[in-house]
Amino acid sequence: MVAPIIPILKEIVGEENVVTGEEALEPYSHDETFGLKFFANVVVKPLNASQVSEILKLANHQKIPVTPRGAGTGVSGGALPCQGGIVLSLERMNKIKEIDLENLMVITEPGVITGELGKEVEKQGLFYPPDPASLDSCSIGGNIAECAGGPRAFKYGVTKNYVCGLEVVFPTGEISHLGGKIVKNVTGYDLISLIIGSEGTLGVVTEATLRLLPLPRCKIDLLVPFNSLTEMTKAVVKIIHQCIIPATMEFMEKKAVLACENFLQKKLPASEAEAQLFIELDGETKEELQTQYERLGEIALQFGAMDILVAEERPSQERLWEARRMLTEAITAKSPIREREDVVVPRREISDLMSELKKLEEKYGLEIISFGHLGDGNVHVNILKGEVAQEEWQERLPCLIRDLFQKVIDLGGVISGEHGIGLSKKSYLSLGLDLTQIELMKRIKQAFDPNNILNPGKIFDLSRTP
Amino acid sequence: MVAPIIPILKEIVGEENVVTGEEALEPYSHDETFGLKFFANVVVKPLNASQVSEILKLANHQKIPVTPRGAGTGVSGGALPCQGGIVLSLERMNKIKEIDLENLMVITEPGVITGELGKEVEKQGLFYPPDPASLDSCSIGGNIAECAGGPRAFKYGVTKNYVCGLEVVFPTGEISHLGGKIVKNVTGYDLISLIIGSEGTLGVVTEATLRLLPLPRCKIDLLVPFNSLTEMTKAVVKIIHQCIIPATMEFMEKKAVLACENFLQKKLPASEAEAQLFIELDGETKEELQTQYERLGEIALQFGAMDILVAEERPSQERLWEARRMLTEAITAKSPIREREDVVVPRREISDLMSELKKLEEKYGLEIISFGHLGDGNVHVNILKGEVAQEEWQERLPCLIRDLFQKVIDLGGVISGEHGIGLSKKSYLSLGLDLTQIELMKRIKQAFDPNNILNPGKIFDLSRTP
Repeated sequence: MVAPIIPILKEIVGEENVVTGEEALEPYSHDETFGLKFFANVVVKPLNASQVSEILKLANHQKIPVTPRGAGTGVSGGALPCQGGIVLSLERMNKIKEIDLENLMVITEPGVITGELGKEVEKQGLFYPPDPASLDSCSIGGNIAECAGGPRAFKYGVTKNYVCGLEVVFPTGEISHLGGKIVKNVTGYDLISLIIGSEGTLGVVTEATLRLLPLPRCKIDLLVPFNSLTEMTKAVVKIIHQCIIPATMEFMEKKAVLACENFLQKKLPASEAEAQLFIELDGETKEELQTQYERLGEIALQFGAMDILVAEERPSQERLWEARRMLTEAITAKSPIREREDVVVPRREISDLMSELKKLEEKYGLEIISFGHLGDGNVHVNILKGEVAQEEWQERLPCLIRDLFQKVIDLGGVISGEHGIGLSKKSYLSLGLDLTQIELMKRIKQAFDPNNILNPGKIFDLSRTP
Repeated sequence: MVAPIIPILKEIVGEENVVTGEEALEPYSHDETFGLKFFANVVVKPLNASQVSEILKLANHQKIPVTPRGAGTGVSGGALPCQGGIVLSLERMNKIKEIDLENLMVITEPGVITGELGKEVEKQGLFYPPDPASLDSCSIGGNIAECAGGPRAFKYGVTKNYVCGLEVVFPTGEISHLGGKIVKNVTGYDLISLIIGSEGTLGVVTEATLRLLPLPRCKIDLLVPFNSLTEMTKAVVKIIHQCIIPATMEFMEKKAVLACENFLQKKLPASEAEAQLFIELDGETKEELQTQYERLGEIALQFGAMDILVAEERPSQERLWEARRMLTEAITAKSPIREREDVVVPRREISDLMSELKKLEEKYGLEIISFGHLGDGNVHVNILKGEVAQEEWQERLPCLIRDLFQKVIDLGGVISGEHGIGLSKKSYLSLGLDLTQIELMKRIKQAFDPNNILNPGKIFDLSRTP
């Protein structure tokens, strides 16, 4: 089915940008989701929107699945060609086209690495806040597909709060320009917001206009250990209510800190605490931040904070955040096989969620390590296989996840805050959304992609039209 | 067509909440859009989502148009029953259900007046930023339908940045709960953002969960007159780039100030300047704001500001903003018949747009008075009929608007930033959006509303299915 069109694909993007053969296709067969591997028939690497359009027109005509792919750092399998066909890799579309210092906007291609974009705009005194953990390897296009967040989302919001314009190629091949260098727009339905977070199922983003902020001049980092997560949550609620809005409010439970100590083979600060709160304050002057952290410190102490460690300079800041940054590797080292969820609950319910996680650990005999964005109520729940036999792992894991998601829903939350549904959470979608919503989403998908060729099999299943 | 179902409507909402007869229907036949008047056959006033659902099921079954209506303050005709049928007035659903001090959320019914909601949350030390000019009379439901903005949108964003959860009744009668007391959510497509700004065409919002902020403790207002709008724009660009983010950055051209002087019959401060910049700084301490306004003042003076008037206390703040607040009435007094547009251009292009407006004034012999949100690039363009004969007004106006919109598009802007397309800008939609986008929007509408009963004839025309 795909073989006959390979010569045409080579004409569109050039022979050197068409990849075939198992070995060459292997790097495109997985992302950062554990245990998922799907081979495409062919990978194509277009250079611009018009090549993307030609590829999509061809695929749409032939009804061949096309899976768009950014940097492959997703953790829900969104970029995997689960139905074979074409992987459309945006890796060559990696140029920052313009940094507009007067309108505070950057125009970028989707293949630009998020961290690189951050560094480039910083050179101009500007700031692109979204900071997913995979900052140094993920791409802007992938961030838009998943509506990526990160620690700074607490103060600054997620990817969708920064996208003002998009060039999109729709599944049937039309190229459209949505929005622009503008922050207000009520001209018809908000197609930009619909594209963001649609996991590459509604269109291929070939250019994005992103809003920038002026770069805050000063930062202060704090590490605040607590002996009770409930009290920590109360402290955070109070801090926010007192008008102190840090850039980040991250937490790690004790087990997470210990995993890092074990991984780094050294003692980390305050690792005996039940939970650690990592706070970054940013602003214009050191004085302003010092006033803030004094007020914040007082509140934390009222709620039983054990200490308040402050880092005002880069080296000590790096040391303070070392554990947080190493965490993913530390957990992987502890158990290479693990499942990561990124549930969200109302901020106030985090301690309830944590109690539930303890119960689930006992019920299923699987270790759970949690950390995440306390300010957002967004908790990264890591379920470890450890020494558990493969068969039991496969049996217990889906039940544990289902229990977890049900609890999250009961607490008024949602099953994914950053990672998306993709392939790996598809079977749980109906827990989080009612049938009307899922049906509407399917109809929207059909409105955009009548032949269901673009990233089929993601978020929900849809039968292909005959 | 409608008469036979009136008894059923009375059963659903009670006899006293069904309005018929020309006199009683008159208040529901117009909004704040000049020159539009359409009578419904009946107005119904439901009390809850389940009544709304029953009404929509009935109307959908009978294929009767239903036009949802908030407070009727819209300026693009979105709430007018242009195809007759039922007006669904949400006026009785006017309760604030919960102010959640721990999660900083408010749950409200759609009929609550935006300014009332603001006052209620302020009593708890909280802050709901969106502040459309009609604050004291518009409703939250209408704000969601139009994605309302306001002066504070510059710093704080528009309505969509605050909506975390919605209860929606879809046109076919299903009641769904989207999102919740959560700020991150990537569970399937972003239906919430799609509903916001859809002008009541995709669903009826019966409850909203809105994010709140802590209330800033201090405010300082500045009035900065300039003798050149170009220099004023440059100053604003520089101020923002220097990391000073005021709550509002409003401007009024000289003619707008003079219209206010005439209306108020008194001299206003700095009314001789070519343009006035109104700035509101907000924050935690007076000291912080003083530092900011000193830096801001220096920049403004570099760009030729004629003066910097500062108001730190409520009474002087009120005086400073008097002209800005009276502006709509002042312009109406000058010319009761007038057209208002709310175009958006990249911030940097505002002075180009203003030059274009001067040219259009001359070309068409119609007076234009402009003011608006300089920080957002969102300009309210008022085209005055004045003494021009009705026939000539009707001939020249659409040509002027078309020229204006084309210039806005050429400058990289959009034709509406706050008011929506509704009925009055429908014929210009294809200037701002390409055919692919309009076609996708129509298909989305069909996906939600297969019989095209909900607010039909708004944004675009869609033939009703047979």
